[in-house]
Amino acid sequence: MSDLRVSERVAVIGAGLVGSLWALMLARRGYIVDVYDRRPDPCLAGDVGGRSINLALSERGWKALDLAGVQNAVRTIAMPIKGRRMHAVDGSLTFQPYGREEGGRFGEGECIYSVARGSLNRLLLEAAEATGQTTVHFDHKLEDYRQDGEGVTLHFGEQGEPRCDRLFGTDGAFSAVRMRMMKADRFDVEQKYLEHGYKEIELSPDGAGDFQLPSDGLHIWPRGHFMLMALPNPDGSFTCTLFAPYEGADSFAEIANADAAQAYFEKHFPDIVPLLPNLKAQWTDHPTSSLAMVSCEPWHEGDRVALVGDSAHAIVPFYGQGMNCGFEDCTVLDGLMGDGGVKDWSTMLAKYSSLRKPSGDAILELALRNFIEMRDLTGDAQFLLQKRIERKLAQQYPDRWVPLYSQVTFTHIDYAEALRRGDVQRAIMRQVMDRPDIDEIWDNEELLNDVLQSALDLLDKK
Amino acid sequence: MSDLRVSERVAVIGAGLVGSLWALMLARRGYIVDVYDRRPDPCLAGDVGGRSINLALSERGWKALDLAGVQNAVRTIAMPIKGRRMHAVDGSLTFQPYGREEGGRFGEGECIYSVARGSLNRLLLEAAEATGQTTVHFDHKLEDYRQDGEGVTLHFGEQGEPRCDRLFGTDGAFSAVRMRMMKADRFDVEQKYLEHGYKEIELSPDGAGDFQLPSDGLHIWPRGHFMLMALPNPDGSFTCTLFAPYEGADSFAEIANADAAQAYFEKHFPDIVPLLPNLKAQWTDHPTSSLAMVSCEPWHEGDRVALVGDSAHAIVPFYGQGMNCGFEDCTVLDGLMGDGGVKDWSTMLAKYSSLRKPSGDAILELALRNFIEMRDLTGDAQFLLQKRIERKLAQQYPDRWVPLYSQVTFTHIDYAEALRRGDVQRAIMRQVMDRPDIDEIWDNEELLNDVLQSALDLLDKK
Repeated sequence: MSDLRVSERVAVIGAGLVGSLWALMLARRGYIVDVYDRRPDPCLAGDVGGRSINLALSERGWKALDLAGVQNAVRTIAMPIKGRRMHAVDGSLTFQPYGREEGGRFGEGECIYSVARGSLNRLLLEAAEATGQTTVHFDHKLEDYRQDGEGVTLHFGEQGEPRCDRLFGTDGAFSAVRMRMMKADRFDVEQKYLEHGYKEIELSPDGAGDFQLPSDGLHIWPRGHFMLMALPNPDGSFTCTLFAPYEGADSFAEIANADAAQAYFEKHFPDIVPLLPNLKAQWTDHPTSSLAMVSCEPWHEGDRVALVGDSAHAIVPFYGQGMNCGFEDCTVLDGLMGDGGVKDWSTMLAKYSSLRKPSGDAILELALRNFIEMRDLTGDAQFLLQKRIERKLAQQYPDRWVPLYSQVTFTHIDYAEALRRGDVQRAIMRQVMDRPDIDEIWDNEELLNDVLQSALDLLDKK
Repeated sequence: MSDLRVSERVAVIGAGLVGSLWALMLARRGYIVDVYDRRPDPCLAGDVGGRSINLALSERGWKALDLAGVQNAVRTIAMPIKGRRMHAVDGSLTFQPYGREEGGRFGEGECIYSVARGSLNRLLLEAAEATGQTTVHFDHKLEDYRQDGEGVTLHFGEQGEPRCDRLFGTDGAFSAVRMRMMKADRFDVEQKYLEHGYKEIELSPDGAGDFQLPSDGLHIWPRGHFMLMALPNPDGSFTCTLFAPYEGADSFAEIANADAAQAYFEKHFPDIVPLLPNLKAQWTDHPTSSLAMVSCEPWHEGDRVALVGDSAHAIVPFYGQGMNCGFEDCTVLDGLMGDGGVKDWSTMLAKYSSLRKPSGDAILELALRNFIEMRDLTGDAQFLLQKRIERKLAQQYPDRWVPLYSQVTFTHIDYAEALRRGDVQRAIMRQVMDRPDIDEIWDNEELLNDVLQSALDLLDKK
């Protein structure tokens, strides 16, 4: 903890993952932090309002947790996931590792980590409170705020009108802070929904409390324009999520009732059906949820108000980067605040906005593309071959070729730069895959070396 | 007035131009209409909150006014504008008629009409009230609404919570109804600002009360990335509007004070400076306003709530179509409601939304393009030659070639279809203008006929 004590009072709206972490970081800097959340306390502990209960934590997230001093604590509740496990309709399985088998933050190879949302949220909130600098207020719904020269007045209806010096909106995709910022002049915002919705189904542990599928993988049943996914939870269960279009072929609209859902699963995901004896009841009980995307600019209003996390850049979940991107916002903001405290908030927040806005746009684009990859390409032989060649490239020339997935998941390269480099690599791989002899690559070491070299030559020319 | 009496109670939020007209149309259908507006009564009479005080009424607007039975009344407060009058820096003038010299709705050739916003608004509101079916409530700010199976409850804070059967949001670019609809699932919305702002300067009548510039034209001082415009008002004045970027060369940011504004006008618009003796005072007194664009989808929520006008599709003013498009929404909605009253509101409103959303997108695109044309091309000799050739084409082959401006301004062709046809014509004109002998066209009748024929031949091939 820093010895610095700052008399400024900061309000953080939203006690979710990003809000809790950001409150912790601010408190460690010596600010007096009030965290407000519209929900009652217990809601944060579990599955809330159709949001998934597990999350994929990767390198960008870990860096922020490290900076906030809670990396080791979070490590104890995180479960390594080493790669994708693809399920074909005939039940056959393919494994595709996420990264290299050595290295990685914890020396167990490059992998992502499954964390229960509730546990991580509690851990972060408790750490923020433990600083003695943070108070958390539940059941506080922000109705409005007003800036003046001296500070910001928060309007919580009957809960009062406290004042603060700075206000951070970490209140998610449907941010009340952002809704209020929309009334400011020249604030651009876009809110857009994916044509696909999702429904979650729990796959319970077996009688002995063990996982019923290999627990080191993100399981995917890629089926073209829809897919099923399963991510393990530390308690031995899996959260399965069906992503399907709202309308049209194989859509939610076509699944009229629980019987139709059972038939749908039997047709498309037969290998998981025996593991889901209560599928029909779950289908009826669980909501179909939509997927919202938000982008806006600027991410701040003057020198007192700013957005962090989903409130500024809600994205789709297909890259597992929503939380990681929000945590990286905190890392970047913290970096901009510098060591000696902030002298010019207006310039600092403007810089934060102009730095991070392109990153937010890029990770949204990347996540949309990854949806297509996951549902469409992960079952394709040519795609798997390409991935394998890229892995070989990355292994032999780690300084020259970092696959796009690795850039996003295992490095701190700006998302916008990763998107750019990924496009260059994609164009190269398209040329490489066009070679008529590409299918023989693993039988012929000379050919393999020639292919790898030609990819690097093309990279040099870009 | 229809003999039909309908017991349904309809709320219209926003007593502006579109709200007043739509209330009138609904009242004539027999609905009991309550119009609510957040502003006090007198505000509607004049210049409000930086909005321009005059408007260009064209064919789409007239059709809706005709349908509402007020065309003749509006005619008495409308002033014909026959074309653009372009002012070069050296003071030379060029006239470019909007349409054909004969025809047009009132037999005085094709022209647009300048109307004072306040006068038109009053006329429409009074006509709505005169039906005996409409009540207007000022000082009512909508804070929220709630739909249930039986109707809609409106929340006006201390002003009460009246009920209605249907709710129409005609409350403009910053619509409270739309802000509330954003909270509904799967509602897409984009709010975006132009990089240009504007400032209005009044050019007073001369000592005798007469116009100081020709009153039959929309005056434009095109200067590339910025421009000055002047539209006559029926009282002998002109409203001049400077459109300039907020930042960069020749921007508002560069005009630090009234002296700088004076110098800016003397440099770029020298011919108007003698007519604006109080330019400096006006510059200081008048705000610089932003230009918001809004698009959203769907334009309705279930079977009880819908958006009409700017609330659904706020556009930039450069085609003079904002009000006309809103009025056309009313025409289309009225058409969809049919003769016997609405049986299935849900289907009808969904049809309205899917019909009009592409039109709204198209007129926004057209208006953005017209900004470039007005500020950039109207001073260009090649552009003027092209316009003249198109006029000749339209004159000789009125059934085959309607210039894009005429489609938008003098017809009821759907904006989306006009945009499509305009693109085809633009591609053809680009080919025509590439002829090496094109500059000699007016000296050689054979050449002229050949050029016109080649344009029609190209059109046949599309």
